[in-house]
Amino acid sequence: MMGRIIVEVMPKPEILDPQGKAVMGVLPRVGVTAFTSVRQGKCFYLDVEGTVTEEHLAQARHAAEELLANPNIESVVRVEAAEENK
Amino acid sequence: MMGRIIVEVMPKPEILDPQGKAVMGVLPRVGVTAFTSVRQGKCFYLDVEGTVTEEHLAQARHAAEELLANPNIESVVRVEAAEENK
Repeated sequence: MMGRIIVEVMPKPEILDPQGKAVMGVLPRVGVTAFTSVRQGKCFYLDVEGTVTEEHLAQARHAAEELLANPNIESVVRVEAAEENK
Repeated sequence: MMGRIIVEVMPKPEILDPQGKAVMGVLPRVGVTAFTSVRQGKCFYLDVEGTVTEEHLAQARHAAEELLANPNIESVVRVEAAEENK
């Protein structure tokens, strides 16, 4: 049995997001015009043996703040146990 | 009022994930040892005017399949309206 924690890291709103802008620019080529803005960040799957515990979540938050996000330009927006290992 | 759709794109399980491996390798330096594996993918925020509709979700799925994920190495694992604009 394997547990999974999902961590999402996104660029801070005030930070220029060239990748998001690039995506926004090409969406019309695939017929997509509904969106007013696009931001691109990072998503991590951290897997553990057995079910996810509070200790696992605390380590994931610590890893996210210390390593997975650059605090100058990014925010950790989500650290959650996945429902089941999708 | 602004609605938001979150799209997550992850490397396919069978695909080598060097970035995930690199993160896995440095986690012990910040005292994190709980995780058996790490995978790194992409996360997108697609914003719309007003609330998210089925049409918006359909366009987001289309954009994800056509543009945001490389079908050879990545899977679209999530296309969901955010609860409220976090």
